[in-house]
Amino acid sequence: MTRWNLPPDRIPSAWYNVLPRFETPMDPALHPGTRQPIGPDDLAPLFPMGLILQEVSPDPWIDIPGEVLDILRLWRPTPLVRATRLEAALGTPARIYFKDESVSPAGSHKPNTAVPQAFYNKQEGITRLTTETGAGQWGTALSFACAQFDLECLVYMVRTSFDSKPYRKVMMQAWGGQCVPSPVDDPSHPGSLGSAITDAVRDAVSRDDTHYALGSVLNHVLLHQTVIGLEAREQLEMAGERLPDVVIAPCGGGSNLGGVALPFYEDRSVRLLAVEPSSCPTLTEGRFEYDFGDTGEMTPLLPMYTLGHDFIPPTIHAGGLRYHGDAPIVSKLVKDGRMEAVAYPQSKVFDAALLFARTEGKVPAPEAAHGIRAAIDEALAAKETGEEKVILFNYCGHGHLDLQAYDDYLNGRLVD
Amino acid sequence: MTRWNLPPDRIPSAWYNVLPRFETPMDPALHPGTRQPIGPDDLAPLFPMGLILQEVSPDPWIDIPGEVLDILRLWRPTPLVRATRLEAALGTPARIYFKDESVSPAGSHKPNTAVPQAFYNKQEGITRLTTETGAGQWGTALSFACAQFDLECLVYMVRTSFDSKPYRKVMMQAWGGQCVPSPVDDPSHPGSLGSAITDAVRDAVSRDDTHYALGSVLNHVLLHQTVIGLEAREQLEMAGERLPDVVIAPCGGGSNLGGVALPFYEDRSVRLLAVEPSSCPTLTEGRFEYDFGDTGEMTPLLPMYTLGHDFIPPTIHAGGLRYHGDAPIVSKLVKDGRMEAVAYPQSKVFDAALLFARTEGKVPAPEAAHGIRAAIDEALAAKETGEEKVILFNYCGHGHLDLQAYDDYLNGRLVD
Repeated sequence: MTRWNLPPDRIPSAWYNVLPRFETPMDPALHPGTRQPIGPDDLAPLFPMGLILQEVSPDPWIDIPGEVLDILRLWRPTPLVRATRLEAALGTPARIYFKDESVSPAGSHKPNTAVPQAFYNKQEGITRLTTETGAGQWGTALSFACAQFDLECLVYMVRTSFDSKPYRKVMMQAWGGQCVPSPVDDPSHPGSLGSAITDAVRDAVSRDDTHYALGSVLNHVLLHQTVIGLEAREQLEMAGERLPDVVIAPCGGGSNLGGVALPFYEDRSVRLLAVEPSSCPTLTEGRFEYDFGDTGEMTPLLPMYTLGHDFIPPTIHAGGLRYHGDAPIVSKLVKDGRMEAVAYPQSKVFDAALLFARTEGKVPAPEAAHGIRAAIDEALAAKETGEEKVILFNYCGHGHLDLQAYDDYLNGRLVD
Repeated sequence: MTRWNLPPDRIPSAWYNVLPRFETPMDPALHPGTRQPIGPDDLAPLFPMGLILQEVSPDPWIDIPGEVLDILRLWRPTPLVRATRLEAALGTPARIYFKDESVSPAGSHKPNTAVPQAFYNKQEGITRLTTETGAGQWGTALSFACAQFDLECLVYMVRTSFDSKPYRKVMMQAWGGQCVPSPVDDPSHPGSLGSAITDAVRDAVSRDDTHYALGSVLNHVLLHQTVIGLEAREQLEMAGERLPDVVIAPCGGGSNLGGVALPFYEDRSVRLLAVEPSSCPTLTEGRFEYDFGDTGEMTPLLPMYTLGHDFIPPTIHAGGLRYHGDAPIVSKLVKDGRMEAVAYPQSKVFDAALLFARTEGKVPAPEAAHGIRAAIDEALAAKETGEEKVILFNYCGHGHLDLQAYDDYLNGRLVD
């Protein structure tokens, strides 16, 4: 057997909340004006109370609403796959497993949180959501989710991605969403996730019928993504494994990483490994401090590893990893020594992507390929030592809408 | 439950051969020069003997080689899904099921035959394969399959698709294949499947190390695709259904249609329905006669419904359905009255595609959307009569590389 499916009725019924399990409490988010800890009311112009309460919930488990489960079941549980053909190509004694989040409607893990975010907003009477998107994965995910709850959806897309990936916009439109390039007030600016967040937040606070939705970074987003790791635990058991030796995922804001890794937080023998691009090395070279989530200094100040909120990352192909900061939860794990981080230049990442495509058949998103790169290096290290290591990585998205990147790589146009 | 997965060890171990089950024998293919029935030796310059024998095999079941199963297991068995959200949107008492072939590496059903074709060629010492591709699905599938067996792969792509879908070429290259526009000798010609076949056959017969691979039409291709229907039968049973009332699939050359429908051939209560574009209405408006498979008159003459081998279909978005003829097996089924056919203009097809995307979350390939259109119309008819009809259609491919078509549709640029 090389693939383990759970039936749709075995989808997790509750999210895993890491907050009450931390040995030391998280530092609070601070108000951008007063620099005092923010309260629920400060966030109410942006988010529904259902999500705000999840942001600071002390409950170890949080039930997933039935209406959310009904939609997640369109593609969840996702398969756990053992990459035996990749193992053979590497000649490694390691057993490499990946969780295939690419099977979702939008092609990534992003709908796992888009759906509950749309649900809680709908419940509170909101009729319109704004958001930002980098590579376009999150924008398509939210468009899909809004279509399920009859919400309007407006996506501010980082201009460099908007221009280079026109099909992401079309996909959003196919689900009824709208997409515009950001920054809206400077057509000559390439944009960044930070600037697109500013545009989306400004729009949301200006209208009573509108809220803002964030695809990563915040605690409730990582919470929603824990279905990935919860399913993976169960599937690894089906595969006859006790626990993985290492859990690997790419890290931009930290949502897919948190999703697969947090449910292994309490298993101290399990190494957790974040993978980021060398060109945006937040965890490996950033500083841990309070910083804004956006360039416009409109968001709360978050305790996180950051390169500075005015840092504009180079326009590498893994647009989803171009963020100046990291989720506070991920930052705390790294700061506390519970999680490691590694950075790769994109040519090494695409080497790994091609090997994966030619052995396992799947053409990965550049973001996902960062995780593959690290998994391969862990497997090669195991080959050196002869160790039967169990490696789990999150295959967070397919590359069907990223083929321009492969064209550049195959034709020597890729710059590290 | 809305999704039924079979474990990888429940993949069918033999293909279903419809030939010995026909009440009357099939008319033979004729030699293009002598117009006499062709024998195995006539086909040997193009195909390995393993495939040639399958083309006329009297065996009701043909074992799938273990090496082929090992690769098919990368994505098979594919899920059977009940489209409950689509049913609800239609308000129909019908139960609509679809077989999700979009989960394969190339994103369609095509690898089901690409893998065994590459295998039998490799076994015979062939080191290079040529083929044609229309929308690009088949070319990517063969590139993937050749990568698994270390074969060179050269794909002649219909020029109009080559120009409008550059990412299909990149995907082929990601797996190590090469792709050139066809016809090679006339850069001003938009091309057609018929002309691309001529280019690929001419190349193959000119070199001893090279064979030709066809992605549809021939008996062995439809044979390889029967894994679709065989799995679907088993999954429908898991879902508590006895048999479907109607089995629906789009028809270009006929391979995905044959794949899902043939395993229901002997269940006379099950209606089989082919769906084609109004702009290339082979089954609904063509004539049943001997015709060439290509424009260059190099292939054997096949007994089939045809619009004439010099017919150049309009450049509609469902490039995979732009073929002047049909599989002889499909043609016989229609001629014998065992299969029905219906044709739709592409705007009606995209209406259906959007409804499907917004309810079930998946953005279909334009080819696949033809099947969805017919399934919706069957479900609406059931609503009129109040009948609890069971509908099965083949979701033969995703539309991630067809988003230009959606852009055209959403912006009113689509012409019927």
